[in-house]
Amino acid sequence: MGIKSKRRDIALIYSEVPATAAAVFTQNVFCAEPVKLSREHIKGGKAQAFIINSGNANACTGEEGWKGAVAMAETTAELLGIPKESVQVASTGLIGEPFPTEKVLDGIRECVKKLSDREMAGSLAANAILTTDTYAKEGFTSFDINGTNINMAGIAKGSGMIHPNMGTMLGFITCDIAISQSLLDEALRSAVNKTFNMITVDGDTSTNDMVGIMCNGMAGNEKITEKDKNYEKFYNNLEELCTHLAKLIVSDGEGSTKLIEYQVRQAATEEKARKIIRTVSDSSLVKTAVFGSDPNWGRIVGAAGRAGVSFDPDKLDLYIGSNAENSVQILKNGQPIKEARSEVKEAMKNSNIVIILDLNEGSVSATGWGPDLSYEYIRINAEYTT
Amino acid sequence: MGIKSKRRDIALIYSEVPATAAAVFTQNVFCAEPVKLSREHIKGGKAQAFIINSGNANACTGEEGWKGAVAMAETTAELLGIPKESVQVASTGLIGEPFPTEKVLDGIRECVKKLSDREMAGSLAANAILTTDTYAKEGFTSFDINGTNINMAGIAKGSGMIHPNMGTMLGFITCDIAISQSLLDEALRSAVNKTFNMITVDGDTSTNDMVGIMCNGMAGNEKITEKDKNYEKFYNNLEELCTHLAKLIVSDGEGSTKLIEYQVRQAATEEKARKIIRTVSDSSLVKTAVFGSDPNWGRIVGAAGRAGVSFDPDKLDLYIGSNAENSVQILKNGQPIKEARSEVKEAMKNSNIVIILDLNEGSVSATGWGPDLSYEYIRINAEYTT
Repeated sequence: MGIKSKRRDIALIYSEVPATAAAVFTQNVFCAEPVKLSREHIKGGKAQAFIINSGNANACTGEEGWKGAVAMAETTAELLGIPKESVQVASTGLIGEPFPTEKVLDGIRECVKKLSDREMAGSLAANAILTTDTYAKEGFTSFDINGTNINMAGIAKGSGMIHPNMGTMLGFITCDIAISQSLLDEALRSAVNKTFNMITVDGDTSTNDMVGIMCNGMAGNEKITEKDKNYEKFYNNLEELCTHLAKLIVSDGEGSTKLIEYQVRQAATEEKARKIIRTVSDSSLVKTAVFGSDPNWGRIVGAAGRAGVSFDPDKLDLYIGSNAENSVQILKNGQPIKEARSEVKEAMKNSNIVIILDLNEGSVSATGWGPDLSYEYIRINAEYTT
Repeated sequence: MGIKSKRRDIALIYSEVPATAAAVFTQNVFCAEPVKLSREHIKGGKAQAFIINSGNANACTGEEGWKGAVAMAETTAELLGIPKESVQVASTGLIGEPFPTEKVLDGIRECVKKLSDREMAGSLAANAILTTDTYAKEGFTSFDINGTNINMAGIAKGSGMIHPNMGTMLGFITCDIAISQSLLDEALRSAVNKTFNMITVDGDTSTNDMVGIMCNGMAGNEKITEKDKNYEKFYNNLEELCTHLAKLIVSDGEGSTKLIEYQVRQAATEEKARKIIRTVSDSSLVKTAVFGSDPNWGRIVGAAGRAGVSFDPDKLDLYIGSNAENSVQILKNGQPIKEARSEVKEAMKNSNIVIILDLNEGSVSATGWGPDLSYEYIRINAEYTT
């Protein structure tokens, strides 16, 4: 599909032809130098390469850091013979450390030499962007658009809090579909909102977060220019791939022993549903209860109740289980169902937990994911790193 | 000062004469039955008794729970010969357990018999409202208003997450000053905002939180009816007492090994300063770093950066120390000061930590307090409780 990559602690993802591109970045007031640069470069809606280094976040590095990010783009562009504006730059690693520009540029030069389109190359890139992640996060899907086969692949990293970074979340997606930039941009933002933005490991947001996508049209389909069934097909595959990568990130959350899926059903608005999910999935009390396989529903409703959105507590139904299908109802109209407790407790020993809050007040649903909170999380994040 | 109390798992605080009163309650969508009742009763701006039970939160208990709360007020009122609207009711303990109304009423009857005005009575009341708190939280102060001696006393509880409660924070303050209800209400809200509302143990808010105050005028001062220097004196003593109680609650936070004071200086608005403090003090990464005595400033700026308020990261100065006076500057204009790191690391071994963020953009300051995050917190909150 015209995408090649090769690893070290540098990952290069290159499209043989200019690609339509879109990207979303961290909302953190402190954003890294590469984020500032990539934000500028994406304005044209085109890209041909993602260049990513791990080990140094290039954040709080000032003028020197900015020059380093620019040098990464310029060197990559020069070696590939593409405009520097077509290079999206990302970094992950230590914050506030001087950025080792020369070392990184050497790495880029080697990376370009070793560009490969072999299947393993994607895995090597997925490994190159890891920090304290315990495994590489990859996904691939293909689908059909009017008889044309479309390939879509993505890699991601996340959830590793190495000093003094905050668990940067990076995602890079490539696809050989032909699609207009405005639709691609809309599709990426929507998919990220429903997936990467609905996961939490500990509520902290990185200075370096970024998700980017390149679609280079090499599949040869008739360009998608409106929200027809072909767009829907593309979007659904994109959201599915992002969901897959997002759940991999949560499962790799530091000290995580369980993957918790949070569903809010029959909410009045999507914003309400999302706020409740974020608050409940960020609650240390809820996360420790799940770690302890404790059907501690009082903590769940208490967290939902402080989410800053209004709903009728006397209408709330709560279900807990190892999956949505056979979850057990533990709260009906805000009142506990005593008999359910032991059954739920048994289900909570599973490594996959689903918590469902049905507000019974509207028609909107939302889903989010998060890890539990274990001793291991404390160990990893409390041990001396300076 | 005409305030008497006696303990069991029931605390009764009684004023011999009708008192001007004010109270603030949890904002949680799920609020306990006694909160609903006390909200009604306080509307008259008068109270003569606080009746508090521990062991059962009387939350998510439905109609029966409501009747129980009403019965607590009626029985207390009847035995003391006061209107039931003059009784403020509070509960703390298990959520969703049937409320043992008869047992509680028996406790109230005994409590009334044993009313005492001995000094120890206050301590007994302070102990009666505890749940998993490891010590009672009391404070007393006296000051002079135009030659009249004024006494002010308070008790509080907090931070104990017993299944499935969320660490209810309760505070009850009594004073013999004469003051208008509108000024008292304003003073309480302002003091609570700057103290009890600026502490966090794990970001969770209880279904039962309440802070109430009774001022019965028995000191005999000329009634305070305007914001003169006498009001200021009263307010400053009230805020000081609330600060004292709030810090006692944080110090008793589950698994807490350190008391962290957060200061935001030179912010554009108080709301900005508070939002930043809440976000930083709720960050598990910041709390685990302090537990590990790790000057992990990247986590602090990262948390501040996602507080949802805009400020210039290139103006941020960051100081860390064992107290505000001799804190060490670790960030200047958003850039790290390398040499400072070892010095700060040494200071962080102290059991009192001060983290100061100077935004250098305005003239407003705010202060908050929180605990660190330790293995013990996980143990307490993860162990089976059902």
